[in-house]
Amino acid sequence: MKLIEMTVKGFVDETASDSPAPGGGSVSALAGSLAAALGEMVIRLTTGKKAFKALDEGIQKEFEAKLPELEKQHKRLEELIDEDTQAFNAFMDALKLPKETDEQKVARKKAMSDATVVAMQVPLETAKVCLSVLNLLPIIAKYGNNNAASDAGVAALNARSGLEGAILNVKINLGGIDDAPLCEKTKAECDKMLAEGETLKTDILKTIYSKIE
Amino acid sequence: MKLIEMTVKGFVDETASDSPAPGGGSVSALAGSLAAALGEMVIRLTTGKKAFKALDEGIQKEFEAKLPELEKQHKRLEELIDEDTQAFNAFMDALKLPKETDEQKVARKKAMSDATVVAMQVPLETAKVCLSVLNLLPIIAKYGNNNAASDAGVAALNARSGLEGAILNVKINLGGIDDAPLCEKTKAECDKMLAEGETLKTDILKTIYSKIE
Repeated sequence: MKLIEMTVKGFVDETASDSPAPGGGSVSALAGSLAAALGEMVIRLTTGKKAFKALDEGIQKEFEAKLPELEKQHKRLEELIDEDTQAFNAFMDALKLPKETDEQKVARKKAMSDATVVAMQVPLETAKVCLSVLNLLPIIAKYGNNNAASDAGVAALNARSGLEGAILNVKINLGGIDDAPLCEKTKAECDKMLAEGETLKTDILKTIYSKIE
Repeated sequence: MKLIEMTVKGFVDETASDSPAPGGGSVSALAGSLAAALGEMVIRLTTGKKAFKALDEGIQKEFEAKLPELEKQHKRLEELIDEDTQAFNAFMDALKLPKETDEQKVARKKAMSDATVVAMQVPLETAKVCLSVLNLLPIIAKYGNNNAASDAGVAALNARSGLEGAILNVKINLGGIDDAPLCEKTKAECDKMLAEGETLKTDILKTIYSKIE
Protein backbone atom coordinates (compact mmCIF):
# COMPACT_ATOMS: atom_id res chain seq x y z
CA MET A 1 0.00 0.00 0.00
CA LYS A 2 1.27 3.44 -0.91
CA LEU A 3 2.02 5.70 2.06
CA ILE A 4 -0.04 8.57 0.62
CA GLU A 5 -3.07 6.25 0.43
CA MET A 6 -2.84 5.53 4.17
CA THR A 7 -4.94 7.61 6.54
CA VAL A 8 -3.16 10.51 8.23
CA LYS A 9 -3.47 8.66 11.54
CA GLY A 10 -2.18 5.46 9.93
CA PHE A 11 0.82 7.29 8.48
CA VAL A 12 1.73 8.89 11.83
CA ASP A 13 1.31 5.55 13.65
CA GLU A 14 3.40 3.73 11.02
CA THR A 15 6.12 6.39 11.45
CA ALA A 16 6.11 5.77 15.22
CA SER A 17 6.47 1.99 14.79
CA ASP A 18 9.72 0.03 15.12
CA SER A 19 10.07 -0.33 11.34
CA PRO A 20 12.60 2.21 10.08
CA ALA A 21 10.35 3.28 7.16
CA PRO A 22 8.63 5.64 6.75
CA GLY A 23 11.19 7.82 8.46
CA GLY A 24 12.56 11.32 8.28
CA GLY A 25 12.90 11.30 4.48
CA SER A 26 9.22 10.62 3.82
CA VAL A 27 8.19 13.00 6.61
CA SER A 28 10.32 15.76 5.05
CA ALA A 29 8.69 15.22 1.63
CA LEU A 30 5.28 15.43 3.33
CA ALA A 31 6.27 18.69 5.06
CA GLY A 32 7.27 20.12 1.68
CA SER A 33 4.05 18.93 0.06
CA LEU A 34 1.99 20.58 2.80
CA ALA A 35 4.00 23.78 2.38
CA ALA A 36 3.16 23.90 -1.34
CA ALA A 37 -0.49 23.08 -0.58
CA LEU A 38 -0.74 25.94 1.94
CA GLY A 39 0.77 28.30 -0.65
CA GLU A 40 -1.90 27.21 -3.15
CA MET A 41 -4.63 27.76 -0.57
CA VAL A 42 -3.44 31.31 0.17
CA ILE A 43 -3.46 32.10 -3.56
CA ARG A 44 -7.00 30.70 -3.89
CA LEU A 45 -8.16 32.76 -0.90
CA THR A 46 -6.63 35.92 -2.37
CA THR A 47 -7.24 36.31 -6.10
CA GLY A 48 -11.01 36.87 -5.88
CA LYS A 49 -10.73 39.68 -3.33
CA LYS A 50 -11.20 43.42 -4.02
CA ALA A 51 -7.83 44.35 -2.46
CA PHE A 52 -6.08 41.97 -4.85
CA LYS A 53 -7.93 43.25 -7.92
CA ALA A 54 -6.78 46.77 -7.00
CA LEU A 55 -3.11 45.72 -7.31
CA ASP A 56 -0.90 46.48 -10.30
CA GLU A 57 -1.77 44.05 -13.12
CA GLY A 58 1.81 42.83 -13.41
CA ILE A 59 1.84 41.87 -9.74
CA GLN A 60 -1.51 40.09 -10.12
CA LYS A 61 -0.14 38.03 -13.02
CA GLU A 62 3.10 37.19 -11.22
CA PHE A 63 1.11 36.17 -8.12
CA GLU A 64 -1.33 33.97 -10.05
CA ALA A 65 1.50 32.32 -11.99
CA LYS A 66 2.73 30.74 -8.73
CA LEU A 67 -0.36 28.52 -8.51
CA PRO A 68 0.47 25.96 -11.26
CA GLU A 69 4.08 25.86 -10.08
CA LEU A 70 3.02 25.07 -6.51
CA GLU A 71 0.56 22.44 -7.74
CA LYS A 72 3.38 20.74 -9.65
CA GLN A 73 5.68 20.78 -6.62
CA HIS A 74 2.97 19.59 -4.24
CA LYS A 75 2.34 16.59 -6.53
CA ARG A 76 6.05 15.82 -6.99
CA LEU A 77 6.62 15.95 -3.23
CA GLU A 78 3.65 13.62 -2.69
CA GLU A 79 5.39 11.10 -4.97
CA LEU A 80 8.67 11.59 -3.11
CA ILE A 81 6.98 10.52 0.16
CA ASP A 82 6.71 6.99 -1.28
CA GLU A 83 9.90 7.09 -3.34
CA ASP A 84 11.96 7.80 -0.21
CA THR A 85 10.61 4.77 1.60
CA GLN A 86 11.00 2.59 -1.54
CA ALA A 87 14.64 3.66 -1.90
CA PHE A 88 15.26 2.88 1.76
CA ASN A 89 13.66 -0.55 1.40
CA ALA A 90 15.88 -1.26 -1.65
CA PHE A 91 18.91 -0.55 0.56
CA MET A 92 17.55 -2.90 3.23
CA ASP A 93 17.20 -5.61 0.54
CA ALA A 94 20.85 -5.13 -0.47
CA LEU A 95 21.84 -5.39 3.20
CA LYS A 96 20.19 -8.81 3.39
CA LEU A 97 22.11 -10.28 0.42
CA PRO A 98 24.24 -13.37 1.23
CA LYS A 99 27.82 -12.75 2.36
CA GLU A 100 29.26 -16.27 2.56
CA THR A 101 31.71 -16.32 -0.36
CA ASP A 102 34.14 -13.58 -1.46
CA GLU A 103 32.13 -13.19 -4.66
CA GLN A 104 28.92 -12.65 -2.66
CA LYS A 105 30.67 -10.16 -0.39
CA VAL A 106 31.83 -8.06 -3.36
CA ALA A 107 28.37 -8.21 -4.97
CA ARG A 108 26.67 -7.27 -1.68
CA LYS A 109 29.02 -4.33 -1.10
CA LYS A 110 28.38 -3.01 -4.62
CA ALA A 111 24.60 -3.46 -4.27
CA MET A 112 24.67 -1.57 -0.95
CA SER A 113 26.71 1.31 -2.37
CA ASP A 114 24.48 1.52 -5.48
CA ALA A 115 21.32 1.49 -3.34
CA THR A 116 22.80 4.23 -1.14
CA VAL A 117 23.43 6.45 -4.16
CA VAL A 118 19.75 6.06 -5.10
CA ALA A 119 18.65 6.48 -1.49
CA MET A 120 20.58 9.76 -1.41
CA GLN A 121 19.15 11.09 -4.65
CA VAL A 122 15.56 10.94 -3.43
CA PRO A 123 16.05 13.32 -0.46
CA LEU A 124 18.36 15.44 -2.64
CA GLU A 125 15.43 15.98 -4.99
CA THR A 126 13.10 16.57 -2.02
CA ALA A 127 15.49 19.27 -0.79
CA LYS A 128 15.58 20.92 -4.23
CA VAL A 129 11.79 20.95 -4.57
CA CYS A 130 11.35 22.31 -1.01
CA LEU A 131 13.76 25.12 -1.91
CA SER A 132 11.71 25.83 -5.06
CA VAL A 133 8.60 26.06 -2.88
CA LEU A 134 10.38 28.54 -0.59
CA ASN A 135 11.36 30.59 -3.64
CA LEU A 136 7.69 30.94 -4.64
CA LEU A 137 6.46 32.05 -1.21
CA PRO A 138 7.77 35.64 -0.77
CA ILE A 139 5.21 37.20 -3.14
CA ILE A 140 2.46 35.05 -1.56
CA ALA A 141 3.46 36.26 1.91
CA LYS A 142 3.52 39.87 0.68
CA TYR A 143 0.32 40.10 -1.37
CA GLY A 144 -1.67 37.17 0.06
CA ASN A 145 -4.96 37.70 1.91
CA ASN A 146 -4.11 39.09 5.37
CA ASN A 147 -6.55 36.67 7.01
CA ALA A 148 -4.37 33.83 5.69
CA ALA A 149 -1.03 35.38 6.70
CA SER A 150 -0.41 32.67 9.30
CA ASP A 151 -0.99 30.01 6.61
CA ALA A 152 1.68 31.55 4.38
CA GLY A 153 4.00 31.59 7.41
CA VAL A 154 3.30 27.92 8.17
CA ALA A 155 4.03 27.17 4.50
CA ALA A 156 7.49 28.75 4.84
CA LEU A 157 8.18 26.90 8.11
CA ASN A 158 7.26 23.53 6.58
CA ALA A 159 9.20 24.12 3.36
CA ARG A 160 12.22 25.07 5.46
CA SER A 161 11.90 22.04 7.72
CA GLY A 162 11.36 19.77 4.68
CA LEU A 163 14.51 21.23 3.11
CA GLU A 164 16.78 20.68 6.13
CA GLY A 165 15.16 17.34 6.98
CA ALA A 166 15.84 16.08 3.45
CA ILE A 167 19.43 17.35 3.67
CA LEU A 168 19.96 15.41 6.92
CA ASN A 169 18.87 12.33 4.97
CA VAL A 170 21.27 13.11 2.13
CA LYS A 171 24.15 13.63 4.54
CA ILE A 172 23.59 10.45 6.54
CA ASN A 173 23.70 8.53 3.24
CA LEU A 174 26.99 10.14 2.16
CA GLY A 175 28.74 8.07 4.83
CA GLY A 176 27.89 4.90 2.86
CA ILE A 177 29.08 6.12 -0.55
CA ASP A 178 32.59 5.26 -1.66
CA ASP A 179 33.06 8.18 -4.06
CA ALA A 180 34.81 11.14 -2.42
CA PRO A 181 34.33 13.68 -5.25
CA LEU A 182 30.58 12.93 -5.43
CA CYS A 183 30.31 13.27 -1.64
CA GLU A 184 32.19 16.60 -1.59
CA LYS A 185 30.10 18.02 -4.43
CA THR A 186 26.82 16.89 -2.85
CA LYS A 187 27.75 18.25 0.56
CA ALA A 188 28.61 21.66 -0.91
CA GLU A 189 25.34 21.69 -2.88
CA CYS A 190 23.37 20.90 0.30
CA ASP A 191 25.08 23.60 2.35
CA LYS A 192 24.38 26.18 -0.37
CA MET A 193 20.68 25.20 -0.51
CA LEU A 194 20.42 25.32 3.27
CA ALA A 195 21.87 28.85 3.46
CA GLU A 196 19.58 30.03 0.66
CA GLY A 197 16.55 28.43 2.35
CA GLU A 198 17.36 30.01 5.70
CA THR A 199 17.53 33.50 4.17
CA LEU A 200 14.24 32.98 2.33
CA LYS A 201 12.46 31.66 5.42
CA THR A 202 13.71 34.55 7.55
CA ASP A 203 12.55 37.14 5.00
CA ILE A 204 9.14 35.50 4.54
CA LEU A 205 8.51 35.32 8.28
CA LYS A 206 9.54 38.96 8.68
CA THR A 207 6.76 39.86 6.21
CA ILE A 208 4.28 37.61 8.03
CA TYR A 209 5.07 38.97 11.51
CA SER A 210 4.70 42.54 10.21
CA LYS A 211 1.17 41.58 9.13
CA ILE A 212 -0.02 39.77 12.25
CA GLU A 213 1.72 41.46 15.19
CA MET B 1 -15.24 13.12 8.28
CA LYS B 2 -12.31 13.60 10.65
CA LEU B 3 -9.16 14.99 9.05
CA ILE B 4 -6.98 12.26 10.53
CA GLU B 5 -9.22 9.62 8.90
CA MET B 6 -8.59 11.15 5.45
CA THR B 7 -5.79 9.72 3.32
CA VAL B 8 -2.49 11.60 3.40
CA LYS B 9 -3.07 12.62 -0.23
CA GLY B 10 -6.63 13.68 0.58
CA PHE B 11 -5.44 15.80 3.51
CA VAL B 12 -2.77 17.56 1.42
CA ASP B 13 -5.27 18.16 -1.41
CA GLU B 14 -7.90 19.48 1.01
CA THR B 15 -5.27 21.84 2.45
CA ALA B 16 -4.54 23.14 -1.06
CA SER B 17 -8.23 23.79 -1.80
CA ASP B 18 -9.95 27.17 -1.60
CA SER B 19 -11.61 26.30 1.71
CA PRO B 20 -9.67 27.96 4.54
CA ALA B 21 -9.70 24.78 6.65
CA PRO B 22 -7.62 22.73 7.21
CA GLY B 23 -4.99 25.45 7.31
CA GLY B 24 -1.77 26.26 9.10
CA GLY B 25 -3.13 25.34 12.54
CA SER B 26 -3.97 21.75 11.62
CA VAL B 27 -0.75 21.41 9.60
CA SER B 28 1.27 22.56 12.63
CA ALA B 29 -0.41 19.99 14.87
CA LEU B 30 0.38 17.32 12.26
CA ALA B 31 4.04 18.42 12.15
CA GLY B 32 4.20 18.08 15.94
CA SER B 33 2.53 14.68 15.86
CA LEU B 34 5.04 13.44 13.26
CA ALA B 35 7.89 14.82 15.39
CA ALA B 36 6.71 12.80 18.39
CA ALA B 37 6.21 9.72 16.18
CA LEU B 38 9.78 9.97 14.83
CA GLY B 39 11.07 10.26 18.39
CA GLU B 40 9.20 7.08 19.30
CA MET B 41 10.62 5.30 16.25
CA VAL B 42 14.19 6.23 17.19
CA ILE B 43 13.64 4.89 20.73
CA ARG B 44 12.22 1.63 19.32
CA LEU B 45 15.20 1.28 16.95
CA THR B 46 17.65 1.85 19.82
CA THR B 47 16.71 0.01 23.01
CA GLY B 48 17.32 -3.52 21.68
CA LYS B 49 20.86 -2.73 20.47
CA LYS B 50 24.11 -3.85 22.11
CA ALA B 51 25.50 -0.29 22.23
CA PHE B 52 22.44 0.85 24.17
CA LYS B 53 22.58 -2.04 26.63
CA ALA B 54 26.19 -1.08 27.37
CA LEU B 55 25.10 2.37 28.59
CA ASP B 56 24.76 3.37 32.23
CA GLU B 57 21.51 1.92 33.62
CA GLY B 58 20.25 5.33 34.73
CA ILE B 59 20.62 6.68 31.19
CA GLN B 60 18.84 3.63 29.77
CA LYS B 61 15.90 4.19 32.12
CA GLU B 62 15.72 7.92 31.39
CA PHE B 63 15.87 7.21 27.64
CA GLU B 64 13.14 4.54 27.77
CA ALA B 65 10.91 6.77 29.92
CA LYS B 66 10.55 9.17 26.98
CA LEU B 67 8.55 6.61 24.98
CA PRO B 68 5.21 6.78 26.85
CA GLU B 69 5.51 10.58 27.03
CA LEU B 70 6.01 10.86 23.27
CA GLU B 71 3.12 8.45 22.64
CA LYS B 72 0.87 10.66 24.75
CA GLN B 73 1.93 13.82 22.89
CA HIS B 74 1.66 12.18 19.47
CA LYS B 75 -1.94 11.20 20.28
CA ARG B 76 -2.85 14.61 21.73
CA LEU B 77 -1.41 16.37 18.66
CA GLU B 78 -3.40 14.04 16.39
CA GLU B 79 -6.56 15.22 18.17
CA LEU B 80 -5.48 18.85 17.84
CA ILE B 81 -5.33 18.46 14.03
CA ASP B 82 -9.13 18.16 14.02
CA GLU B 83 -9.77 20.47 16.97
CA ASP B 84 -8.03 23.33 15.18
CA THR B 85 -10.24 23.01 12.13
CA GLN B 86 -13.38 22.62 14.31
CA ALA B 87 -12.52 25.79 16.25
CA PHE B 88 -11.97 27.66 12.99
CA ASN B 89 -15.30 26.45 11.63
CA ALA B 90 -17.04 27.62 14.83
CA PHE B 91 -15.61 31.09 14.18
CA MET B 92 -16.87 30.98 10.58
CA ASP B 93 -20.35 30.08 11.93
CA ALA B 94 -20.27 33.13 14.24
CA LEU B 95 -19.23 35.29 11.29
CA LYS B 96 -22.35 34.18 9.41
CA LEU B 97 -24.77 35.22 12.21
CA PRO B 98 -27.35 37.86 11.21
CA LYS B 99 -26.37 41.50 11.66
CA GLU B 100 -29.61 43.36 10.81
CA THR B 101 -30.68 44.72 14.22
CA ASP B 102 -28.50 46.30 16.91
CA GLU B 103 -29.26 43.35 19.15
CA GLN B 104 -28.06 40.92 16.47
CA LYS B 105 -24.92 42.98 15.90
CA VAL B 106 -24.01 42.84 19.61
CA ALA B 107 -24.75 39.09 19.78
CA ARG B 108 -22.68 38.44 16.63
CA LYS B 109 -19.74 40.47 17.89
CA LYS B 110 -19.76 38.58 21.19
CA ALA B 111 -20.04 35.21 19.44
CA MET B 112 -17.11 36.11 17.17
CA SER B 113 -14.90 37.23 20.07
CA ASP B 114 -15.80 34.10 22.09
CA ALA B 115 -15.08 31.85 19.10
CA THR B 116 -11.73 33.62 18.59
CA VAL B 117 -10.71 32.96 22.21
CA VAL B 118 -11.42 29.24 21.61
CA ALA B 119 -9.74 29.36 18.19
CA MET B 120 -6.65 30.80 19.88
CA GLN B 121 -6.52 28.23 22.67
CA VAL B 122 -6.22 25.29 20.30
CA PRO B 123 -2.95 26.43 18.64
CA LEU B 124 -1.73 27.63 22.06
CA GLU B 125 -2.04 24.04 23.28
CA THR B 126 -0.44 22.78 20.05
CA ALA B 127 2.52 25.09 20.69
CA LYS B 128 2.85 23.85 24.29
CA VAL B 129 2.78 20.19 23.27
CA CYS B 130 5.29 20.78 20.43
CA LEU B 131 7.62 22.40 22.98
CA SER B 132 7.19 19.37 25.27
CA VAL B 133 8.17 17.13 22.35
CA LEU B 134 11.30 19.26 21.78
CA ASN B 135 12.16 18.94 25.48
CA LEU B 136 12.14 15.13 25.17
CA LEU B 137 14.38 14.96 22.11
CA PRO B 138 17.90 15.91 23.35
CA ILE B 139 18.52 12.55 25.05
CA ILE B 140 17.09 10.75 22.00
CA ALA B 141 19.42 12.68 19.70
CA LYS B 142 22.37 11.91 21.98
CA TYR B 143 21.89 8.21 22.74
CA GLY B 144 19.66 7.16 19.83
CA ASN B 145 20.79 4.62 17.22
CA ASN B 146 23.32 6.38 14.94
CA ASN B 147 21.62 4.93 11.86
CA ALA B 148 18.49 6.87 12.84
CA ALA B 149 20.28 10.15 13.64
CA SER B 150 18.65 11.90 10.68
CA ASP B 151 15.23 10.79 11.96
CA ALA B 152 15.88 12.38 15.36
CA GLY B 153 16.96 15.53 13.52
CA VAL B 154 13.79 15.57 11.41
CA ALA B 155 11.81 15.14 14.65
CA ALA B 156 13.40 18.31 16.06
CA LEU B 157 12.80 20.25 12.83
CA ASN B 158 9.12 19.28 12.75
CA ALA B 159 8.53 19.97 16.44
CA ARG B 160 10.15 23.40 15.98
CA SER B 161 8.10 24.17 12.88
CA GLY B 162 4.90 22.94 14.60
CA LEU B 163 5.72 25.21 17.56
CA GLU B 164 6.25 28.39 15.53
CA GLY B 165 3.41 27.57 13.12
CA ALA B 166 1.00 27.20 16.04
CA ILE B 167 2.25 30.46 17.51
CA LEU B 168 1.56 32.27 14.21
CA ASN B 169 -2.00 30.96 14.53
CA VAL B 170 -2.26 32.20 18.14
CA LYS B 171 -0.95 35.63 17.17
CA ILE B 172 -3.22 36.12 14.17
CA ASN B 173 -6.18 35.39 16.49
CA LEU B 174 -5.05 37.91 19.11
CA GLY B 175 -6.07 40.69 16.71
CA GLY B 176 -9.72 39.63 17.07
CA ILE B 177 -9.77 39.45 20.88
CA ASP B 178 -10.95 42.49 22.81
CA ASP B 179 -9.05 41.79 26.05
CA ALA B 180 -5.71 43.61 26.17
CA PRO B 181 -4.31 41.94 29.34
CA LEU B 182 -5.09 38.45 27.94
CA CYS B 183 -3.45 39.40 24.63
CA GLU B 184 -0.31 40.78 26.32
CA LYS B 185 0.02 37.73 28.57
CA THR B 186 -0.47 35.31 25.66
CA LYS B 187 1.99 37.12 23.42
CA ALA B 188 4.67 37.05 26.14
CA GLU B 189 4.02 33.35 26.74
CA CYS B 190 4.41 32.63 23.01
CA ASP B 191 7.65 34.57 22.68
CA LYS B 192 9.10 32.74 25.67
CA MET B 193 8.16 29.35 24.19
CA LEU B 194 9.59 30.32 20.81
CA ALA B 195 12.95 31.32 22.30
CA GLU B 196 13.10 28.11 24.36
CA GLY B 197 12.21 26.02 21.29
CA GLU B 198 14.84 27.67 19.14
CA THR B 199 17.57 26.93 21.70
CA LEU B 200 16.45 23.31 22.01
CA LYS B 201 16.30 22.81 18.24
CA THR B 202 19.76 24.34 17.74
CA ASP B 203 21.29 22.11 20.44
CA ILE B 204 19.61 18.96 19.12
CA LEU B 205 20.74 19.61 15.55
CA LYS B 206 24.31 20.28 16.75
CA THR B 207 24.28 16.76 18.25
CA ILE B 208 22.82 15.30 15.04
CA TYR B 209 25.31 17.02 12.71
CA SER B 210 28.19 15.82 14.90
CA LYS B 211 26.94 12.27 14.29
CA ILE B 212 26.34 12.39 10.55
CA GLU B 213 28.94 14.79 9.14
